[in-house]
Amino acid sequence: MARTRQKQQKDRHQEILDAAARVITDRGLAETRIQDIAERCGVSPGLILYYFESKDRLLVEALTFANDKYYLAQSRELRRLSSARGQLERLIELSVPGLLGEYERLEEWALWLEIWVRALRDPSLAREREALDRRWRQSISDIVRHGRETGEFPDGNDADELGMEIGALIDGLAVQVLLNDTVLTPTRMKAVCLDVAARLIGFSLEPAPA
Amino acid sequence: MARTRQKQQKDRHQEILDAAARVITDRGLAETRIQDIAERCGVSPGLILYYFESKDRLLVEALTFANDKYYLAQSRELRRLSSARGQLERLIELSVPGLLGEYERLEEWALWLEIWVRALRDPSLAREREALDRRWRQSISDIVRHGRETGEFPDGNDADELGMEIGALIDGLAVQVLLNDTVLTPTRMKAVCLDVAARLIGFSLEPAPA
Repeated sequence: MARTRQKQQKDRHQEILDAAARVITDRGLAETRIQDIAERCGVSPGLILYYFESKDRLLVEALTFANDKYYLAQSRELRRLSSARGQLERLIELSVPGLLGEYERLEEWALWLEIWVRALRDPSLAREREALDRRWRQSISDIVRHGRETGEFPDGNDADELGMEIGALIDGLAVQVLLNDTVLTPTRMKAVCLDVAARLIGFSLEPAPA
Repeated sequence: MARTRQKQQKDRHQEILDAAARVITDRGLAETRIQDIAERCGVSPGLILYYFESKDRLLVEALTFANDKYYLAQSRELRRLSSARGQLERLIELSVPGLLGEYERLEEWALWLEIWVRALRDPSLAREREALDRRWRQSISDIVRHGRETGEFPDGNDADELGMEIGALIDGLAVQVLLNDTVLTPTRMKAVCLDVAARLIGFSLEPAPA
């Protein structure tokens, strides 16, 4: 019984975080009231505040939850691919807002923008942003290391530096795509990221891998 | 007399925009009331709304004003430098939040973050963001073209593409620096940007130019 209750609590917790991500993405954090999220998932505003204390706390938990889900899905997908080049291409595809038509990715990017604004004046939020960001850059560095082991990528600059550089490039381009830039479409962003990554890592995009 | 009045109006207009930039940077847009900006520059909230209609309008005008000032200062500085390599280095220095200790640049970056969040749900704001962003990328492309004319940079990838790539890298790294990343300091951001730009444009960082 105790275990069932724990599971129910966990489900409820995650339902609230999913609802929060959706409402914040649709309206923006400034226009989101706890009441809106409560209505979306059919609980009382009191219960949400009991779990999360404040709207900012709810924001960072919603981002962490969305990011965890994304990270698990990404890890699962990348593990299936043996070539580092294939993994890099897939990681980029998964990162481009709107490329794969999955609403979740747009949600996660929208939450990132909100976190950036709030973290500017909230050092503890800034630390949580940094930890999530580090994991993201790390997954790029890991692909670079893997490609050096398989011999697909040449030795060269530090893998962690490359992770930071390629990660920052993706962030900067993603903001433009997310805001419906008329020149930088999702397809073009994918091509640009892959091209720059190839130049920085030092591998040739031709011929395509088997 | 009419001209004096016009000038006074223009000064007042700019004072409001400066005050808005400062207050929004300090508090965040969500926590900024028109009343706070009015108090900062000693006018009535009614006058501010008479000039700007809404807080979102005031935000975009404040960013445009800050960006225009930055752009003029940057153009003036770059014109003084004849080498493209020197111009690129200066442009990067001017872009790194907090590197030169000028509060204005932090303000402008803070306004950019706010614009990104609002533009997500406001297509006309997204268009204005794109226009300002294009000018910024253009100034990088212009330096690349200049360097090819002077023979400092080799021919290679399209200059506009390079402007987009280096601009996005700077954006992505600037967010991290702005949020006080413990690893990516302003000094390190400058080094990373210059190093990546050199690799993408195809020039060597050694020996340093005279």
